Amino acid sequence: MSLISDISVSVDGFVAGPDADLDDPLGRGGEQLHEWIFGLASWRDPHGLEGGETTPDDDIVREGRSRTGAVIMGRRMYSGGSGPWEQDSNAEGWWGEEPPFATNVYVLTHHAREPKPMPGGNAFVFVTDGIESALEQARSAAGERDVLVAGGAGAAQQYLAADLLDELQLHVAPVRLGDGVRLFAPGAPAGSLEIDRVVASPAVTHLRYRVVR
Amino acid sequence: MSLISDISVSVDGFVAGPDADLDDPLGRGGEQLHEWIFGLASWRDPHGLEGGETTPDDDIVREGRSRTGAVIMGRRMYSGGSGPWEQDSNAEGWWGEEPPFATNVYVLTHHAREPKPMPGGNAFVFVTDGIESALEQARSAAGERDVLVAGGAGAAQQYLAADLLDELQLHVAPVRLGDGVRLFAPGAPAGSLEIDRVVASPAVTHLRYRVVR
Repeated sequence: MSLISDISVSVDGFVAGPDADLDDPLGRGGEQLHEWIFGLASWRDPHGLEGGETTPDDDIVREGRSRTGAVIMGRRMYSGGSGPWEQDSNAEGWWGEEPPFATNVYVLTHHAREPKPMPGGNAFVFVTDGIESALEQARSAAGERDVLVAGGAGAAQQYLAADLLDELQLHVAPVRLGDGVRLFAPGAPAGSLEIDRVVASPAVTHLRYRVVR
Repeated sequence: MSLISDISVSVDGFVAGPDADLDDPLGRGGEQLHEWIFGLASWRDPHGLEGGETTPDDDIVREGRSRTGAVIMGRRMYSGGSGPWEQDSNAEGWWGEEPPFATNVYVLTHHAREPKPMPGGNAFVFVTDGIESALEQARSAAGERDVLVAGGAGAAQQYLAADLLDELQLHVAPVRLGDGVRLFAPGAPAGSLEIDRVVASPAVTHLRYRVVR
């Protein structure tokens, strides 16, 4: 079991562009970080879309899904901006009736609520007592498989800052955003990494590192 | 002719560690950014050392040297810290009697001085009227070959901020420095890049991008 942060980042180190806020969580230009993924079969299939490319990028996404036994995400990634959840903590997230997750998803939040079941037996589980509690619950659900910190920036930064990650996969998109939300914020720890794997395509570069302790 | 910035950077985006100053220009832990290069034949040879590894990393360095028709560097990279140049602007840099450059080197500085010849016919040329002037002189010397911004951080940042670079080669060392001098400082421009080449080794990942205009 490894705790993995897997996130798309610009060449200049941003995971969201300038003026990111609840209504526009990716910020100005931030959608360019994710363009590499939308055409892939491994992204389209769990989102209920047919077809798509089967490239090395596709293999990376598919492999990530098969290794993942539980997902952790921030509350904003769950609710998708300032939508109804701001007014009503029982309102739905933006993931619709068939969320593209094959495992439980642990959502870091300050609003306690009952788990929300997904079709297929998994659930969104809302965790109000911190990132270590979320990790413990996710580990327990994941068994032998990995726990994925899916984002957003805040969740990834918190696990980075607490030095809890075992593995870091950066999908480096060929864009400079100039400003915005940095993945590596002040206060993130220093330390050696081990290069685990590099996969290159014309659209994105996948860099995977093991954290050396 | 392309203007290229070629620099080693940590996974978290730093080109020098914390507490970098004139006496310790790489900052705390910053030497880890450059460890990948010292064992290479292509680094050792121009530094008057025998032997060394002939790996893909070595090919990258060798190729860079052969493409380069002129080098631009910051004054601190020339003088190597707070040494004698602080007191005496005619004192030597730290490059010794046989500097490892096969071309002219244009040094960005506020101190006017005569060019300093190197063995073999090239020279350090001191440029006091700004980065565009240095570029113009370097271009003229380079002919068909490329102009390399060799560092340090300040020089690379200035050419980035002025959006003069055609190509960006990042040697990403598998280390997080946590804090220090960022290559992509606030004010650097946004924009698309094109992935030109990715070369991976166990020691470092070489990412080369073309700036899209």
